[in-house]
Amino acid sequence: MRLLVKNVILGKKKVDILIEEKKILKIGKNLNLRVNEKIDAKGEKAVIPGLINCHTHSAMILFRGLAEDLPLKDWLEKEIWPREAKLTEDDVYWGTKLAILEMIKSGTTTFNEMYWFEEAQIEAVKEMGIRAVIGLVMLDFLPMGSRKKVEELTKRLMTKRLMTIQFSIAPHATYTVSKENLIWAKNFAKRHRLLIHMHLSETEKEVKDCLKKYKMRPVEFLEKIGFLDKNCIFAHCVWLSEKEIEILEKRGCSLVYNPTSNMKLASGVFPWKRIKERKINICLGTDGPASNNSLSLFSEMKIGALLQKIENKDPTAISAQKSFQMATKNGAKALRINTGEIKVGKLADLVLIDLNKIEMFPNYDLISNLVYSDAKNCVSDVICNGKILMRDGKIEKENEIIKKAKAKFLK
Amino acid sequence: MRLLVKNVILGKKKVDILIEEKKILKIGKNLNLRVNEKIDAKGEKAVIPGLINCHTHSAMILFRGLAEDLPLKDWLEKEIWPREAKLTEDDVYWGTKLAILEMIKSGTTTFNEMYWFEEAQIEAVKEMGIRAVIGLVMLDFLPMGSRKKVEELTKRLMTKRLMTIQFSIAPHATYTVSKENLIWAKNFAKRHRLLIHMHLSETEKEVKDCLKKYKMRPVEFLEKIGFLDKNCIFAHCVWLSEKEIEILEKRGCSLVYNPTSNMKLASGVFPWKRIKERKINICLGTDGPASNNSLSLFSEMKIGALLQKIENKDPTAISAQKSFQMATKNGAKALRINTGEIKVGKLADLVLIDLNKIEMFPNYDLISNLVYSDAKNCVSDVICNGKILMRDGKIEKENEIIKKAKAKFLK
Repeated sequence: MRLLVKNVILGKKKVDILIEEKKILKIGKNLNLRVNEKIDAKGEKAVIPGLINCHTHSAMILFRGLAEDLPLKDWLEKEIWPREAKLTEDDVYWGTKLAILEMIKSGTTTFNEMYWFEEAQIEAVKEMGIRAVIGLVMLDFLPMGSRKKVEELTKRLMTKRLMTIQFSIAPHATYTVSKENLIWAKNFAKRHRLLIHMHLSETEKEVKDCLKKYKMRPVEFLEKIGFLDKNCIFAHCVWLSEKEIEILEKRGCSLVYNPTSNMKLASGVFPWKRIKERKINICLGTDGPASNNSLSLFSEMKIGALLQKIENKDPTAISAQKSFQMATKNGAKALRINTGEIKVGKLADLVLIDLNKIEMFPNYDLISNLVYSDAKNCVSDVICNGKILMRDGKIEKENEIIKKAKAKFLK
Repeated sequence: MRLLVKNVILGKKKVDILIEEKKILKIGKNLNLRVNEKIDAKGEKAVIPGLINCHTHSAMILFRGLAEDLPLKDWLEKEIWPREAKLTEDDVYWGTKLAILEMIKSGTTTFNEMYWFEEAQIEAVKEMGIRAVIGLVMLDFLPMGSRKKVEELTKRLMTKRLMTIQFSIAPHATYTVSKENLIWAKNFAKRHRLLIHMHLSETEKEVKDCLKKYKMRPVEFLEKIGFLDKNCIFAHCVWLSEKEIEILEKRGCSLVYNPTSNMKLASGVFPWKRIKERKINICLGTDGPASNNSLSLFSEMKIGALLQKIENKDPTAISAQKSFQMATKNGAKALRINTGEIKVGKLADLVLIDLNKIEMFPNYDLISNLVYSDAKNCVSDVICNGKILMRDGKIEKENEIIKKAKAKFLK
């Protein structure tokens, strides 16, 4: 299977990109080869790496707009949790599928997921062709969050051939998973070479509770039990002490910045300024679409940059380039996938940007336009793992999926 | 001229809306009338009032992405001002036209403008059919910002028949326009019954300089010279004391919240919490597209709400409904136009929202989806002053405008 992307703008040059199977085989001028499929960008589209969403709960799209502008406790306890308790596997299948539709349309080719009914998510991911890391969720107070679930699921999944999918162990947080279960999770992840995906210090209360329970802050506690290494991806990381930042750097953990959700729930501001000079890998995530309420990383790149500028009273606090890097290269590093850049040998996760859209005018700086100009609708074509998922704004079965979802959920 | 919008969702109901000339004549069920034009929403589109951008410098779209992530002083002095000095009337004509294209596509039907070459802007507005308040700019150190310019321009414009256009007097700010010229501007505005559109207390430095120069804060100074009344629209208003807020309330001035620009330039945070309980009309603006870098009020509604939530450490600080109201009803009030709501007798400035787009799923709350779901691309049809400006996502001559602009500016 060979796919040729003709006349596409890469940096300042017009090139052709040859994709064989799932990888970029060649980048050059006037490649005229026999291929199975062609996209001709006619010099009017730019190519960027597919965006990588490093923390989301995608099926929560079913709860988008359900209960807004509430205190976190009320939102969770009165609105979200009672509804989550009634979710079926089929609901999650549809929710994930819809979320993936929104992700593809906004140029996301990989997402790092944490939600229930993991096998339903896997079905949705396979059908839609996107790349994902599916978290096998652990939570002490629910049977579906038990060690047993994780063990059984892992056994079943190991036998499957899942092209674009890998797994993580996803203990929800230090306040919902016991010390014993965290240690078990760590050992299990090590044994199976899995990533760990976890919430960390999203709210101040969480840190205070940890101090009460363990006489240590969350990162200190995790360090003490030998939890931390380069396979850990921590979402939020709002309330970190200097000592905790040092520990996270030493252990090579990846942190996920979730600006919109942190603002919407008023959780706090990610300490970018205190982290940026360190050797810490910072990625970007939308969090779930019930607390964002979008899955677009375009919006996240912009809001993430704006928040750090105002928080630090410094318009130079973060650049468009840095914001873009979080959503591409850094995400790929965190998730251990060979993508996030457009180079020969990398996985072919590519997004084409229509330069004729008004948001791309003028064209002083593509990255600045992508980050700041509200450019989601400039995404025209999406390729993931060498396969075309969206062509000229169109996704196969898009209308059918929305129609079915409306019939199922909007009664 | 009669236009009928059939089967459109208004609130929770499906209705027909009859527009005669520029106004809404009738809203009802199954209106079957002889009309000149019809849009059938088939029950799959919602209708909202056209959005109102209460502060922008639209032709600055020409500088979008030119020089990012710089300190304000360098950005202005090294990048923007030298280029502005070379702008021609034709440049501004094209810049305004492009900006209007972006506004229409993102559901904006009215904008409150402040920029040079006002007659070029008027040409662009007329051709594109949008509604605008064009500011006649005053700035002491440039001939094009003189009293003479304003007088001559007013004389010329008074004789023209300008359907969707009104004017304001736009003294740039208290630090760029002398006391004498401000008093002159006020009297001139009164005599001609014009609005006043001005920057106010955007940066802390501006307030400090005013204290030095006049021994008063900017609002106190403006109060002292009799400048303040309900015809004043002030952009930014970040650095306000309690006393200043009281004065602005007493005088009935409208304030424009410009969250993205304030964040991007790290100017400060609009004191929403201290103002919201008062009888002050708060509107929304994007500021110029060089410091945003978008003209979409969808993005502005979201970022504006998020900023107040995080700033006040309170997820209930502002609701989606309030944010939407700033961009519609409040804007109409500030600009003295009979729109911002969908009612019989109001001007027909309407926007249709495609409910089949993924951002509108599910449909718990339309306003929440509009504000938080990154919904710009759900705008399908735009009607302004009873005329269709965009139909099913298409604007007449859109491609031609972009093509010509690219040929002119992107060499």
